[in-house]
Parts: sequence; structure tokens; C-alpha cells
Amino acid sequence: MLTAKGAATRDRIVTAAAAEIRERGVTAVRLDDIGRRSRTGKSQLFHYFPDGKEQLLLAVAEREAERVLEDQEPQLGQLTSWEAWHEWRDVVVEKYRRQGVNCPLGVLITEIGRHTPAAQAVTGRLLEQWQQRIAAGIADMKAAGEIRAEVDPARASAALIAAIQGGVAILLSSGSSTHLEYALDQCLDYLGANAS
Amino acid sequence: MLTAKGAATRDRIVTAAAAEIRERGVTAVRLDDIGRRSRTGKSQLFHYFPDGKEQLLLAVAEREAERVLEDQEPQLGQLTSWEAWHEWRDVVVEKYRRQGVNCPLGVLITEIGRHTPAAQAVTGRLLEQWQQRIAAGIADMKAAGEIRAEVDPARASAALIAAIQGGVAILLSSGSSTHLEYALDQCLDYLGANAS
Repeated sequence: MLTAKGAATRDRIVTAAAAEIRERGVTAVRLDDIGRRSRTGKSQLFHYFPDGKEQLLLAVAEREAERVLEDQEPQLGQLTSWEAWHEWRDVVVEKYRRQGVNCPLGVLITEIGRHTPAAQAVTGRLLEQWQQRIAAGIADMKAAGEIRAEVDPARASAALIAAIQGGVAILLSSGSSTHLEYALDQCLDYLGANAS
Repeated sequence: MLTAKGAATRDRIVTAAAAEIRERGVTAVRLDDIGRRSRTGKSQLFHYFPDGKEQLLLAVAEREAERVLEDQEPQLGQLTSWEAWHEWRDVVVEKYRRQGVNCPLGVLITEIGRHTPAAQAVTGRLLEQWQQRIAAGIADMKAAGEIRAEVDPARASAALIAAIQGGVAILLSSGSSTHLEYALDQCLDYLGANAS
């Protein structure tokens, strides 16, 4: 367990590393620059990240994963009206459109190694939390009679997560948000059809 | 332009390279082994691929992209009944389930460089052809009165492509086909709802 001060220092290091990586790219980033930016010395860096750069990259990936969800708030956490759903849809599209072909989390996951257990844990946890919030929104809308009873929140939220991941993957390669938008719109159409 | 014999030799080289890469991985593959397997000498290899390994990898990526569509035939080319659509859905799920976390095309695209124009052209063309066939199937089903008039083939096919890409991306990282299946099922539910 870290003390409050220790946690703050660790947090400063991760924030500095995330900023350096966003600015210079993950391959060009150097521990020296992270130390300077976070005002921590080498010995402190290695105290918090004894395994060095790999371990630090993983911490930055976790931070970027949290940011993916934060960027969708407050809408994602309160999908209790169609207005909120459509606002959330616009926030997601706008976030990824702004981001364009550069996905900070994707870059880190590729660097850590897409098939390593550590990288898979980060993406797995992100998708799970994301999907849970969407499922909660679907359940709320069902309870309010806005989504028909036969829609299964677990299945429909999984489909929505797949739609977003696919739309974003195509955006990352093509630069166009069209697929992301059509996929999201169709999922919302599906949820909104024939409400009781 | 290649002569028929030249085209056959080039084809043999690409087939051998694809097999070597599938067996040994893209980083371990050597031109010597490809030459031995295709029964071509170094000078022939460089005649057909003067820029060397990079150019050959691109040709293999194009071959793997064609294979993605071939694997879905004959169903993908004749989506003219609900039976055909559900068969196609099962073929897609089975193909990616069998493939598991190893995507031959994805490995090549990563190696060539996801953001290079050459790699983007290969994936762009693949997604476009894939989507066109799905859109043709939707148009056929609309003409037969099996899909309601307000469904737009261009938008619905884009949503389906995004659903597949997202489901496969999640399968590649998690090993589970659940997202792919739920996403496909929901798209088919959407298409099939309230047909005239």
C-alpha cells in the first residue's frame, strides 16, 4: 500500500509519462524526460516502477483506459432518457472524430504487446466496465417502459460495444466516422423500436 | 503485364509466402524458405518483387484479404433468403472462432504498418467489397418484401461491417466469440423486424 504522499507521487509520474507519450510517441519517450516533467529522480521512478519502462507503460495504459470512460461522462453514467442516449452517442462520435487516427490507448497496447496477459487485462476491464454502464442504461430504460421487454441488456450492450469497437477500428484506419455513426444509430434504432 | 506463365510463378511465390508466414510468423519468415517452397530462385523472387520483402508482404496481405471474402462464399454472394442470412452468420462466426486470436491479415497489416497508404488500401478495399455484398443482399431482401422499405442498404451494411469488425477485434483480444455473435444477431433482428 502506498501512503497518500506516495500515491500522489506515483500519480504525478503516470500523468507525466502519459503526457510525454502523447506528445512524443511511445517509442521516443525517455525515462529522463518523464523524471524531469514529474520532478522525480531516477531512484523515485524505480521505487514506484521497479520493473522499469514496461511497468510504467502499463500504468499509463490503465490511466488512458480510465480516460476513455471519463470522456463519456456524465452521459454514460446516466442513460435514463432518449435525450441522454442521443447526447451520449454524439459525445462518443465527437471524441473519436477529434482523436482521428491516433488512439493513445491502442498505441500503448500495441507496444506492451496485444497478446500479453497484462495488455488483455487492461482492455478486458475497460470493455467490461463500459458494457456494464450501457447495460445499466438499457435496464433503466426497460424499467421506464421506454425499451421493450424482450431486449436483453447483456446481449444488447455487448452488441453496442462491438459496434463502437468496430466503428472506431474503421475510423482509425480510414479517418472516417461514418461506420461508427451508422452502427451507433442502428443500435439506438433497435433499442427504441416499438417501445411498450 | 505478366505473361500467363509469369502470373503463375508470381502466384506460386505469393502462395508459398502466405503458407510460410502462417506457419512461422511474419517476423521469422525468410526469403530463402519462400524460394525453396515455391521452387524459385532469388533472381526470380526479385524479378517479381523488386522491392523485396515489403512488396511481397503486401501481395500476401492482398491474398489474405481475398481469402476473407472467399471464406464466406457461397453464402455472402447470395443473401437472398433469411435462411441464407443465418447460414452466412454461422459461417462468419465459425470462421473467426476457428481462427481464434491469430488473424493472418491483421498480422500482415501490423507488419506493413497500419497507417501506411499501402496497408490502408488493402483493408479499405476489403471492407468496401465486403460491405457491397452485404448491401446487395439487403437490397435483394427489400425487393422481395422481406426487409422493410425504410432500411437503407448503405447504412445497414455499414453497421453490419462495424459490428463484425468490433466483434472480431474483441475475439482477437479475449478469445471469445460472444460479442461477435450478439452483434450479428442484433443486426439480423434489426433487418428482420416488421417486414412488410
